[in-house]
Amino acid sequence: MIIVLRPDATQAQIDHIIDKVQKLGLKPMVSTGTERTIIGVIGPEDILRVTPLEVFPGIEKVMPVLAPYKLVSREFKREDSVIDLGRGLKIGDKRIIVMAGPCAIENYETVLAIAKEVKQAGATVLRGGAFKPRTSPYSFQGLGEEGLKILKQVGDDLGLATVSEVMDTRDVGLVEKYVDILQIGARNMQNFNLLKEVGLTKKPVVLKRGLSSTVKELLMSAEYILAAGNFNVILCERGIRTFEDSTRNTLDISAVPVIKQLSHLPVIVDPSHAAGKWGLVTALARAGIAAGCDGLIVEVHNHPEDAASDGAQSLLPANFASMFQDLKKIAQAMDRGI
Amino acid sequence: MIIVLRPDATQAQIDHIIDKVQKLGLKPMVSTGTERTIIGVIGPEDILRVTPLEVFPGIEKVMPVLAPYKLVSREFKREDSVIDLGRGLKIGDKRIIVMAGPCAIENYETVLAIAKEVKQAGATVLRGGAFKPRTSPYSFQGLGEEGLKILKQVGDDLGLATVSEVMDTRDVGLVEKYVDILQIGARNMQNFNLLKEVGLTKKPVVLKRGLSSTVKELLMSAEYILAAGNFNVILCERGIRTFEDSTRNTLDISAVPVIKQLSHLPVIVDPSHAAGKWGLVTALARAGIAAGCDGLIVEVHNHPEDAASDGAQSLLPANFASMFQDLKKIAQAMDRGI
Amino acid sequence: MIIVLRPDATQAQIDHIIDKVQKLGLKPMVSTGTERTIIGVIGPEDILRVTPLEVFPGIEKVMPVLAPYKLVSREFKREDSVIDLGRGLKIGDKRIIVMAGPCAIENYETVLAIAKEVKQAGATVLRGGAFKPRTSPYSFQGLGEEGLKILKQVGDDLGLATVSEVMDTRDVGLVEKYVDILQIGARNMQNFNLLKEVGLTKKPVVLKRGLSSTVKELLMSAEYILAAGNFNVILCERGIRTFEDSTRNTLDISAVPVIKQLSHLPVIVDPSHAAGKWGLVTALARAGIAAGCDGLIVEVHNHPEDAASDGAQSLLPANFASMFQDLKKIAQAMDRGI
Amino acid sequence: MIIVLRPDATQAQIDHIIDKVQKLGLKPMVSTGTERTIIGVIGPEDILRVTPLEVFPGIEKVMPVLAPYKLVSREFKREDSVIDLGRGLKIGDKRIIVMAGPCAIENYETVLAIAKEVKQAGATVLRGGAFKPRTSPYSFQGLGEEGLKILKQVGDDLGLATVSEVMDTRDVGLVEKYVDILQIGARNMQNFNLLKEVGLTKKPVVLKRGLSSTVKELLMSAEYILAAGNFNVILCERGIRTFEDSTRNTLDISAVPVIKQLSHLPVIVDPSHAAGKWGLVTALARAGIAAGCDGLIVEVHNHPEDAASDGAQSLLPANFASMFQDLKKIAQAMDRGI
Repeated sequence: MIIVLRPDATQAQIDHIIDKVQKLGLKPMVSTGTERTIIGVIGPEDILRVTPLEVFPGIEKVMPVLAPYKLVSREFKREDSVIDLGRGLKIGDKRIIVMAGPCAIENYETVLAIAKEVKQAGATVLRGGAFKPRTSPYSFQGLGEEGLKILKQVGDDLGLATVSEVMDTRDVGLVEKYVDILQIGARNMQNFNLLKEVGLTKKPVVLKRGLSSTVKELLMSAEYILAAGNFNVILCERGIRTFEDSTRNTLDISAVPVIKQLSHLPVIVDPSHAAGKWGLVTALARAGIAAGCDGLIVEVHNHPEDAASDGAQSLLPANFASMFQDLKKIAQAMDRGI
Repeated sequence: MIIVLRPDATQAQIDHIIDKVQKLGLKPMVSTGTERTIIGVIGPEDILRVTPLEVFPGIEKVMPVLAPYKLVSREFKREDSVIDLGRGLKIGDKRIIVMAGPCAIENYETVLAIAKEVKQAGATVLRGGAFKPRTSPYSFQGLGEEGLKILKQVGDDLGLATVSEVMDTRDVGLVEKYVDILQIGARNMQNFNLLKEVGLTKKPVVLKRGLSSTVKELLMSAEYILAAGNFNVILCERGIRTFEDSTRNTLDISAVPVIKQLSHLPVIVDPSHAAGKWGLVTALARAGIAAGCDGLIVEVHNHPEDAASDGAQSLLPANFASMFQDLKKIAQAMDRGI
Repeated sequence: MIIVLRPDATQAQIDHIIDKVQKLGLKPMVSTGTERTIIGVIGPEDILRVTPLEVFPGIEKVMPVLAPYKLVSREFKREDSVIDLGRGLKIGDKRIIVMAGPCAIENYETVLAIAKEVKQAGATVLRGGAFKPRTSPYSFQGLGEEGLKILKQVGDDLGLATVSEVMDTRDVGLVEKYVDILQIGARNMQNFNLLKEVGLTKKPVVLKRGLSSTVKELLMSAEYILAAGNFNVILCERGIRTFEDSTRNTLDISAVPVIKQLSHLPVIVDPSHAAGKWGLVTALARAGIAAGCDGLIVEVHNHPEDAASDGAQSLLPANFASMFQDLKKIAQAMDRGI
Repeated sequence: MIIVLRPDATQAQIDHIIDKVQKLGLKPMVSTGTERTIIGVIGPEDILRVTPLEVFPGIEKVMPVLAPYKLVSREFKREDSVIDLGRGLKIGDKRIIVMAGPCAIENYETVLAIAKEVKQAGATVLRGGAFKPRTSPYSFQGLGEEGLKILKQVGDDLGLATVSEVMDTRDVGLVEKYVDILQIGARNMQNFNLLKEVGLTKKPVVLKRGLSSTVKELLMSAEYILAAGNFNVILCERGIRTFEDSTRNTLDISAVPVIKQLSHLPVIVDPSHAAGKWGLVTALARAGIAAGCDGLIVEVHNHPEDAASDGAQSLLPANFASMFQDLKKIAQAMDRGI
């Protein structure tokens, strides 16, 4: 932690700050410059992070030196984490994992039909929402437990792993019972109690980046889950909110290599929610793999016109199959399987 | 709802769309222009809102005509809502309500000391967090029920109404038991299950705008609470996330008159979280009143240097008292009391 | 400047950095912490600012300590700058200056009619564009010199100071000849050659903040003008680009007190461009004064339906006069004249 | 154009609007819905675009139906534009063009050394700035004409096409004389006079997206150049400004396929300015090609430690050569040459 003093800081103010730092068990190092005096503080930065130094008289600003996350960091663990997804699947190694399926689970027949198609094309994880976070209270809110049962049944029938969102601390046990992978949606990325709760399970968790959260905040939210004991976290870039309005969100493709530098956790990309338009999904999926992601999560529906949710961004099974062929080539160019 | 067709839309595609619209019980009106054909759809727009028209072949874009919220809108209720806060207080009429107190509840003595000061200066509602949403799992997370008891005790001792945040659906009953006003924090603005849960109580709810939510989304989240039966919602502008980094967030002062035009609900401003720096709080509080807000929520701490949370943005009681004198003058210029 | 080293920095790398710093004539101070070594650099920071230290092996990040602007800063000049606008007017002292007029100059009669009304209401500076920066090449681009002549004529007729935008380095001499105050538009805030060119005149300059420029960048652009010799700069907050779409831009009201802390230059607010809707202008103008601005610039048109530019955000003269009465009360509450 | 009326619009107001629309030579079509009356306007939308309909009493909002650009649009020209860059090079067809070189031109020897390396690796266009737009007036501003001469000399020596930025309307003739391709920087994307001026040349123009401009605005700026007679425009995505701070800007990778849908012009990606850090450049360059771009522009310096500008984001020649090998594989996976 570096403390930069105001040009008019008095000696009494400086002494007061030094005294405080020492009382916290830390070691202050004062450097007197031509225009500013600065105090470097040596010792565990966490102690200072929770102390509001900015309010001390004479202080202009406080600059942290270390990242606030630990368990998720590359420094904590050098090698990439490889996470077991169940049904013999792993994410984080050479093979790129493609998760696909409808936005919302509507009924057994529809999910089964879509699942067969995406499996045939190459997907290995089936996605589908039973609890849907909808902006409007008047929109379809999902089938709940009934939906989870359908998802599990189809997963079992076809040998696909399953992923579904959990939105409420009260539902974690329920969702855990039915699915292989838990998903925390973008709107709940900083629902800290929910993070703690999924941290107490052993299931892999797809943690979606909040639509206006920084990469650092995403890592801090992942830290909640790891700190609770669950190290099986998969980070998901799904577009951030910007001023650009030709897409629903702006896919922050740089987040992929940035996260890879800062963390050992696997990263996946959700091109469907980022774009909000099916016509852009393939280009963004290719870009995601070329940027180095470990997987994709894509919305597919066999009758987008009748989809209960997010039809506009769902690929038809035929488009998904065609995209998968493109992705194979890009994966190969990256020396990876898919 | 207006449907704009692509320039190359075929007659078969147009017929398919018209057929679909009619099957939904709506009336299509086709206008053939020089460059585009458009279809105006007459009837309840909600039916179309959940139908993904964008995926129909031949459609270029779909433009909704009506706002998606109802109960919160000015059209639903022309006159301003005045909400009873308990202890004889009301918000939404001539008198501006000032809520003040520490960010986090630390202990009885500190809360009591701060509460006495803010009451003396003119505040009528005491704020204080028992459950704290913290970016880091290693930061102080609040005292929980113990904190709520302290807040209630101090409120009762001094005759102040109280407001405190609830973060978890499981805690709504608990928080409701102790406080006069429930608060939904910015990070939970789209925690829809939590919105439904506080919608089932009868307590007033301060709903903070998410740090990257639009005004429309804020109104939709309020709609969840009203739709569940609780009309006592107070909207709170607390700064949005932008590229500007000289403040923690950017206070969207325009949101005050915009919300006043669109909705009948009271609006308050939180200058402390918007600025993140105590030195800016007074100017922003004055601006909030001048823009037409019905109340303020301000962080005050008697020892910011030792505050367990957000010390940097907390006013000292003396600064708060001095600010209150400024606010009186602005309120008077607006023909309002405070 | 603080240099934070990577945890794996070698001694050879550290020595290389120290050597480089010393060769630049600066003094390095090494502090070895438990988790990181940091090097504080003492001496003029400007030398280091242009040296790309981030690329040196072993460096994790470089943190500047000082602000990069000088002449515009409070440290350079403690007291507020008061700028002479001609015709006996000053900005930056107790009296708030209101600039008003049409977006674009259309013809003598229209400008005269509007000017009479705004003068009658209380405005002292007449605004009007002769060169218009328009997003589309097919939109009205302004009358050019003809427009400047009209503006000057009306200013002379009524005894109003005048302000008009200059967009091209080649036009600075021309615009300077006709108007009292030059304006640099938001889109040209970082047109550095234009800044240098107006810096060579002696006329006061209204410098509008770029729609996605930080306050720091605004100050750096002002620094260009001061560095060229012209200290008569008036900074203008006119809304920034954010995700919010209920207003054209988001008025960053915090910029007013932030700039007042960092700089001695006067600050004005443009509520018309910020809102993009005339119905919000009065509330934002009041908020601007309450936040501490020194002036306002407002669009007024007597026939907004026929305005050649920006009719949607123009006040009718009657609304402007009514707003002025409101502003008087707020100014009084702030102990200022208007 | 669709005009949506307020629910309380009177018949007199509706008649007034219809009258105005008809006087403009357009045909209004009124649809009376259950909740709103809307008026569709048939005829050239441009006429209405410049009429501020929002201010008419009784109007709630006005929704344009058509895009405001023409010459740059896919509708104007279905097939991709292929642009001649000189020296036998073309952009916009199968072969991906890589432009590389130092940020600023420092001296002949340095530029020559870098140019040899990038040519050897595979680049065909040499970039280098003679006029540098710098945030600070105290930073290196470029060598001006001297720099252009050096660039031309090196281009001639090695048979590389050259690209360099022009910042001032007064310099267009000068820059045109020395370089093969003119560049308009991000900060000048809406310097409309400069756009008109380069539109009068016949040289290809790289038009960089403003750091907070929408894709639509980028296309409108290109429209200025085409409207002035120069159809040789290459659009450049170089990152937009967002709240994320782990990169200098956020590369909007979706802009590549979005522009390809909307326009016939070639698109290139600038991974160096987007990232601001050399360690991210390769991943972003790969993503750009996978997303479908027609070229890249990359900063390379042989001694980034001593670069006069932007050293932190410059690749070493060896890294550039290694990246080029990666890009070849991705280009191949996209069925393209490089």
